[in-house]
Amino acid sequence: MTSSAFLKNNPNLYVFLPLFYTVWSDAVLTPSEVATLEGLLRSQQWLTENERNFLLEQLNPASPPSADDLMAWRDEIKKVAGQPGIKDSLVELGIRLAGLYGNGSLDDTLQKARPSLEKIEATLGLISHEAVFNFQGVHDTITSQQTTRLSFEIEKLTQLLEGDQSEIIRKVKTIISDPEFQYIDSGNLETYRTHVLKWCTYLAGQGYGAIAYPKEFGGQGDMKAYFTIMETLSYHDLSMVIKFGVQFGLWGMSVYFLGTQKHHKKYLKDIGTLTLPGCFAMTETNHGSNVKGIETTATYNHTDKTFTIHTPNEYARKEYIGNAALHGQLATVFAKLILEGKDYGVSAFVVPLRDKNGKLAKGVTIKDCGRKMGLNGVDNGIIYFDNVVIPKDNMLDRFSGVNEDGKFESPIASDNRRFFTMLGTLVGGRIGIPRSGVAACKSGLTIAIRYGDQRRQFGPEGGSEVPILNYRTHQRRLMPLLATTYALHFGLRYLTERFLNRTEEEMQEIEALAAGLKAFATWHTTDTLQECREACGGKGYISENKIDALKNDTDIYTTFEGDNTVLMQLVAKSRLTEFRQEFGNMNVFTILNYVAAQAKTSLTEMNPLIVRKTDDDHLLDPEFQMNAFRYRERDILTSAARRLKRHIDSGMDSFDAFNVCQHHLLEVSFAYIERIILEQFQLAVKQTEDAGCKTVLKCLCDLFALYHIEKHKGWYLEQGYMEGVKTKAIRKLVNQLCWEIRQDAVPLVDAFNIPDSCLSAPIAQ
Amino acid sequence: MTSSAFLKNNPNLYVFLPLFYTVWSDAVLTPSEVATLEGLLRSQQWLTENERNFLLEQLNPASPPSADDLMAWRDEIKKVAGQPGIKDSLVELGIRLAGLYGNGSLDDTLQKARPSLEKIEATLGLISHEAVFNFQGVHDTITSQQTTRLSFEIEKLTQLLEGDQSEIIRKVKTIISDPEFQYIDSGNLETYRTHVLKWCTYLAGQGYGAIAYPKEFGGQGDMKAYFTIMETLSYHDLSMVIKFGVQFGLWGMSVYFLGTQKHHKKYLKDIGTLTLPGCFAMTETNHGSNVKGIETTATYNHTDKTFTIHTPNEYARKEYIGNAALHGQLATVFAKLILEGKDYGVSAFVVPLRDKNGKLAKGVTIKDCGRKMGLNGVDNGIIYFDNVVIPKDNMLDRFSGVNEDGKFESPIASDNRRFFTMLGTLVGGRIGIPRSGVAACKSGLTIAIRYGDQRRQFGPEGGSEVPILNYRTHQRRLMPLLATTYALHFGLRYLTERFLNRTEEEMQEIEALAAGLKAFATWHTTDTLQECREACGGKGYISENKIDALKNDTDIYTTFEGDNTVLMQLVAKSRLTEFRQEFGNMNVFTILNYVAAQAKTSLTEMNPLIVRKTDDDHLLDPEFQMNAFRYRERDILTSAARRLKRHIDSGMDSFDAFNVCQHHLLEVSFAYIERIILEQFQLAVKQTEDAGCKTVLKCLCDLFALYHIEKHKGWYLEQGYMEGVKTKAIRKLVNQLCWEIRQDAVPLVDAFNIPDSCLSAPIAQ
Repeated sequence: MTSSAFLKNNPNLYVFLPLFYTVWSDAVLTPSEVATLEGLLRSQQWLTENERNFLLEQLNPASPPSADDLMAWRDEIKKVAGQPGIKDSLVELGIRLAGLYGNGSLDDTLQKARPSLEKIEATLGLISHEAVFNFQGVHDTITSQQTTRLSFEIEKLTQLLEGDQSEIIRKVKTIISDPEFQYIDSGNLETYRTHVLKWCTYLAGQGYGAIAYPKEFGGQGDMKAYFTIMETLSYHDLSMVIKFGVQFGLWGMSVYFLGTQKHHKKYLKDIGTLTLPGCFAMTETNHGSNVKGIETTATYNHTDKTFTIHTPNEYARKEYIGNAALHGQLATVFAKLILEGKDYGVSAFVVPLRDKNGKLAKGVTIKDCGRKMGLNGVDNGIIYFDNVVIPKDNMLDRFSGVNEDGKFESPIASDNRRFFTMLGTLVGGRIGIPRSGVAACKSGLTIAIRYGDQRRQFGPEGGSEVPILNYRTHQRRLMPLLATTYALHFGLRYLTERFLNRTEEEMQEIEALAAGLKAFATWHTTDTLQECREACGGKGYISENKIDALKNDTDIYTTFEGDNTVLMQLVAKSRLTEFRQEFGNMNVFTILNYVAAQAKTSLTEMNPLIVRKTDDDHLLDPEFQMNAFRYRERDILTSAARRLKRHIDSGMDSFDAFNVCQHHLLEVSFAYIERIILEQFQLAVKQTEDAGCKTVLKCLCDLFALYHIEKHKGWYLEQGYMEGVKTKAIRKLVNQLCWEIRQDAVPLVDAFNIPDSCLSAPIAQ
Repeated sequence: MTSSAFLKNNPNLYVFLPLFYTVWSDAVLTPSEVATLEGLLRSQQWLTENERNFLLEQLNPASPPSADDLMAWRDEIKKVAGQPGIKDSLVELGIRLAGLYGNGSLDDTLQKARPSLEKIEATLGLISHEAVFNFQGVHDTITSQQTTRLSFEIEKLTQLLEGDQSEIIRKVKTIISDPEFQYIDSGNLETYRTHVLKWCTYLAGQGYGAIAYPKEFGGQGDMKAYFTIMETLSYHDLSMVIKFGVQFGLWGMSVYFLGTQKHHKKYLKDIGTLTLPGCFAMTETNHGSNVKGIETTATYNHTDKTFTIHTPNEYARKEYIGNAALHGQLATVFAKLILEGKDYGVSAFVVPLRDKNGKLAKGVTIKDCGRKMGLNGVDNGIIYFDNVVIPKDNMLDRFSGVNEDGKFESPIASDNRRFFTMLGTLVGGRIGIPRSGVAACKSGLTIAIRYGDQRRQFGPEGGSEVPILNYRTHQRRLMPLLATTYALHFGLRYLTERFLNRTEEEMQEIEALAAGLKAFATWHTTDTLQECREACGGKGYISENKIDALKNDTDIYTTFEGDNTVLMQLVAKSRLTEFRQEFGNMNVFTILNYVAAQAKTSLTEMNPLIVRKTDDDHLLDPEFQMNAFRYRERDILTSAARRLKRHIDSGMDSFDAFNVCQHHLLEVSFAYIERIILEQFQLAVKQTEDAGCKTVLKCLCDLFALYHIEKHKGWYLEQGYMEGVKTKAIRKLVNQLCWEIRQDAVPLVDAFNIPDSCLSAPIAQ
């Protein structure tokens, strides 16, 4: 007799069907569990011998029910699963089923047996709630229902992000959306480089290359627009952006800022139109970060008033020089000025590389850097100079020069100061690069978030699949990055304004700000694009979806314009100058000042009520967030200064002392930069008038703040600034904010307003 | 009169020279500091009016000393800087200098003036120690002196890593070092793919493709060797490794494990020789992670005993299929078996794609996936089936089949169980991939560490430049990754052994282990190669230095063979089955059990002395480390189970409950995997007999353990398992261990023994 026929004849046995089905459909039932079940079946007095044997046979691992049997069982159970009042009991479900096939008296037997049956269910530890639920078929879950909402006007947020730059942004976007700017395959270096040059020439033709230069040299004296252009172009091919930056930024600006009127007149106009492609030849193979150590020499010969530019050894060659392999005709070359046998330190010179026809200048040798991880549309090269003679006028002599008598002249006596002043004029690159990086983040996040909103995978049993952006881990991966990208937008806007309105006295601060934001933003770019790649799975790996190029092109951003780790050390040293006085001379008075400052914190922030305060109102209070960031910044800086002083006082070489503290100093810089960014984000929220935009920006700002506090929770707990209850509440709130923002995520990336033709990724349409 | 002449005439003024030089060479002197200095000069009674005016003139920002003046001053100061007893006083230095040019009586004046002079020095807050130090010229620092030592025999460590696989490793290395295996430019897809096929064919010719198959099909039944080969090949081109894995692993093993004798006989020999290239067609555009949801159908027609394979909609196409775009002739296709209109779930079928001449089979359409972020030597494709008819025998029928009567047959009744059993046989891929990833880490670290040991940048003032690997941040970036790479070597060896010696009962555990280690190891691979790229600066970006390929080729490892985040959720669910009993039925007794377990921890580990214990002996004690890992694992698992139960009990859908806890569950899996890895690393250290190897491995193991504890310090502090003093001590010890291991770092990567021709990177020679 088939099991189905036996059941029909003994309808009270249907009571076991839901239990047995669940047991068999569960792949992890152990032999001991089978034994338990058998024992309990034997104790059911109301079963006939026949029935008991039938049931025991159903539990025999040697002869399991067939797949068809199981399907039939499930179909039976579903007949009653929808009835009200079943709750989460498989036994109740079985009783209903037996009732369907049996009659009243059988049902009564089962009602009596119910307690012992429920014992079976409990002993097996079946998750009855879920099992019953699954029989009930399709149902909506909270997870399934989450979706995009529109809580603000996208155009208004776009306008807020663009500020007074809307017009130039619109123009640049129109150009890069033109069919002329259609992406090309980047596999062939030659084609790619030619194409990128063509794009740059086109942009120069529109006046964008020269825009920062004075009107007399074809520009509009609009440095702000220059940065906006770099940023907006970054929605398109990044090789184009870097080629553009090398030509009009590095090459042009070095002539503009390091040269004098004679150089401006001679070169600037042609640079701005790309008639005169050039390079910025600073880095040498053996000297990248340590620019002061470069070995190329520029030896002055007073007899014929010339300089001889020379590469004294193999590793003093200029390396990674953009525009050098193919197109550059001239280069700003950084070299040590040698005058009467004396070394006057690093200066800059305009040196010919090749003529208009590509013929190399005498004494110049150039190698191609070849294929790179990214930016393959830029022709980076290696340059060797073998006693290349240039006229005296080719020295870019704003900060150092040689006078008519062949003597050294400079408005700045100190070598150190002259060197840093010279490099300081080039700080613009440390603004352009992070802004380009953050634009790349915006592209990556637009692709990953739109995809995550559409892509469905898994779902509740019997329900339809769920957009992957509804999963908490997916939100955790992308939402904090989205918040930080918005935060950086405001942080970099602030940096740009500070730079544009700089005074001499602020330069050191602005340089530290630029170095720190450059490092923070470009590391964020690398992290974000990595996460976007993974969040898009296999689709993220296929080049047509753009994350490949975005990621590989920007990967070098953490290195060029200054290695991030080195920059962060510089930022920390700059922060320590605040402590110069105390540092060299920490006396009782000063220490008391510290203690007083710390004590103030203790009184206002570190009282036991605050360190344990966990309500949302408190955690979402901008003042609490800012206090936490400031406390961290101040405390780490103070402790780093103390630690350095202790080491130096104990006789350690300061070089060693700084090395011992390097890791600590990195934290000094991070804490500083994070505070700056939060300050600017909070300010932007405060200044926003539109209610919809204000609400969503506040939410992003909260996430930025709390996510970073959570990231540093180990530190806050170590310091006793927070207790475990508080950091746990913060973690919970970060999860909640991610869940909230997910609903605004698509409109939030739409507000970046990146042209579809630039995104181009099929998965982001 | 020049300043130099004036000084000669008034030698006591030399006392100010070191102070003034330091002031002027320092670029950050503020106007208020100049004012202070002027005020103090005016108070020096012993100066003549003339002398005072001369000195004040030297402080006039409008007429600073010239660069030549400053150089001359420095040369003067250096004359006495080397004298003993100067300590850190610029005033003392000045007095000596005045002494050099003056006579006894002048010196006496200065001795009297000394206190007020020192006041100037102190008020200016000059870091005199450093300033004096710098005048003293070249000096060695601790940082400069650190270098590579040889504390163990490299060959012995290599032998220890290779274990009983030395012979096969040696053979494979010999082959991939052959000129035939010279790298080629990966820019041109066609050439690259052809080359990779050639390499794989060569390897097959040597018998490496079939090595895991039974002898009767040309193999040696040596699965262990297969994994070793995958790993060793990974020192070479990774497209080759993946192509190799697709052909002999995915395609071959699916026939071997899912098929029966008839399939083995028909296909296996030709697969092993690469005479019959094939694919593994599981993933569909709309279903990657959720394999159960695939939509391709295999409809059985009993009349002619065939299956019709069909792609029912655009997004049910098979995507990313390796070997599909060009070379695959057959494919193992996963499809839903439809029998008499009923869906019997996912099964596997051998389906023809194209003939030997490349002509596509009837009803098959294939598109090329085109350029990818990496692995461009593999021809991934998209496959559409339009009612492709295959004979009944083409069903891989080990786990499900159709009998002579046209009825469904399976040794496993439960759909769920059958599905997971079937997928379980393919777990080998989750061993091969992480082993390949860790091999890529070994290559990346070899390149970055050798480069860091040679590359010099910056140094103490006047001293020579220092290898960048001597910098603490550089050590912090690379040493923990090196330690984790070693740890994973042992962790993956353990996984391999468990898999090779598996029993049926252990399968669930081994699958979780493989999934978790795959995720952990491939994320580690991505992190490591990113860090290596940045650690090599611009050199790391140039493709010839290999990090480009290593990074981009392995980037997809976090996605294929299962998306890491999804895998980690599976691992967590598997860990939760331990709690099944309690989970469904958490009664007082069970809760008491928990509390007892926790209480035991409190007594032995959480007593106030231990949570604050900071001595090295304690922190380096393997038992302390293991207890900390175990405590974390147990506590997170328990709390996740409790949290899930609370949500479900409160009426939340289990799908929602799991979603709310996803982030928590990720931690469950990490804690589990980290404990497993530490266990295996500690065991390996314990079993090492050679003293040199044992010491260095113990050091690496300590770093692995403490680095991960430090990473989770926020959690340990939240739980009260450690106090701030202890986590601070751990941070300090991590820094110290990085410093120690740096000295062994080059020998440690040399012990990986990667052929030079494979590394090929010029910077790693």
